[in-house]
Amino acid sequence: MSKSEDTRARILNAALDAAPRGGLAALSIGRLAAATGMSKSGLFGRFGGQEPLQLAVVEAAIARFRVAVVEPARGEKAAAGRLKALAARWTDWLTTGRLCPILQAGFEHPSLAPAAADAARQARREWTGFIEQLARRAALEGGLPAGTDPALFAFSFEACGLAAQSYAALQNRKEAAELAGAAFAKLLEPGTA
Amino acid sequence: MSKSEDTRARILNAALDAAPRGGLAALSIGRLAAATGMSKSGLFGRFGGQEPLQLAVVEAAIARFRVAVVEPARGEKAAAGRLKALAARWTDWLTTGRLCPILQAGFEHPSLAPAAADAARQARREWTGFIEQLARRAALEGGLPAGTDPALFAFSFEACGLAAQSYAALQNRKEAAELAGAAFAKLLEPGTA
Repeated sequence: MSKSEDTRARILNAALDAAPRGGLAALSIGRLAAATGMSKSGLFGRFGGQEPLQLAVVEAAIARFRVAVVEPARGEKAAAGRLKALAARWTDWLTTGRLCPILQAGFEHPSLAPAAADAARQARREWTGFIEQLARRAALEGGLPAGTDPALFAFSFEACGLAAQSYAALQNRKEAAELAGAAFAKLLEPGTA
Repeated sequence: MSKSEDTRARILNAALDAAPRGGLAALSIGRLAAATGMSKSGLFGRFGGQEPLQLAVVEAAIARFRVAVVEPARGEKAAAGRLKALAARWTDWLTTGRLCPILQAGFEHPSLAPAAADAARQARREWTGFIEQLARRAALEGGLPAGTDPALFAFSFEACGLAAQSYAALQNRKEAAELAGAAFAKLLEPGTA
């Protein structure tokens, strides 16, 4: 990683750490300058303005999500095992008490830069598409019942995650992760729950 | 309703209609003046500033939610029937394409007036508490299986609604209501689904 890439990554990390406190739409060059100790003109020169900055922050959030949730589950070769690993990692991601910046971007989309809102929306669709594809494979492999409806499975998977986020970040409930675990288990092991 | 109450209700309706486009936190006296054709000083005099205005808008959203979702289900005396009616009404509320202002307030809470964020958070907790209570009663009445875990039921009910919102408002998927209906049916009629 070059020094410039390293600086960029450091700035975007600071932006992501600041975002849950003020929302992505409220993340201005000025606020980011205060958070990083860099000059406004330097940040402006690097990102080209408020809108490209918001897009870069959403892209950084998506990259973080891949590293924290998607990549670690790759070791599971069977689709059902992969879904279980993704459920566990996603629950961790959503119940640490902070808002997921990708979900937050979705709810902020009317006031966010259009390119940033589109990137967040696209990431949401890709995620549910990915889960749907894994559910289809799991049903073929015998890891889920043969009659599993992949679209309904993906919807229900999304549902468990969103409720975990709602309980943890919006309602401050300490039982969020436990309830999410039980709800995911019902979905992933429908015979045993 | 007095003329003054009528004007207040009209202003808050305009605010709610404007909120999904700019977010509640972005709803300023100035924007509301533009949306209603009233003077900024008149609005300031009526609400007392930006923060009380945000609280009034969240309270108006909660009142709308009661009228649209909670009240119409009161006719159902059995708890299971009440839950079904609430699920259907809530799905309608969440899949019309606009963001639910109460959920939106939750996601905006870092940049929202604290009193408004608290009111939205409190409404979320009361809603899941209400569903939990109905699930407990439904299990006693035989409308849900005797072994139903009320806390997990309420979490799963919340989950279906949030996924409906995510699919409809954040992903623009036209099948949102249909998938929510199928997911709620699995939850409400676990034997038949």
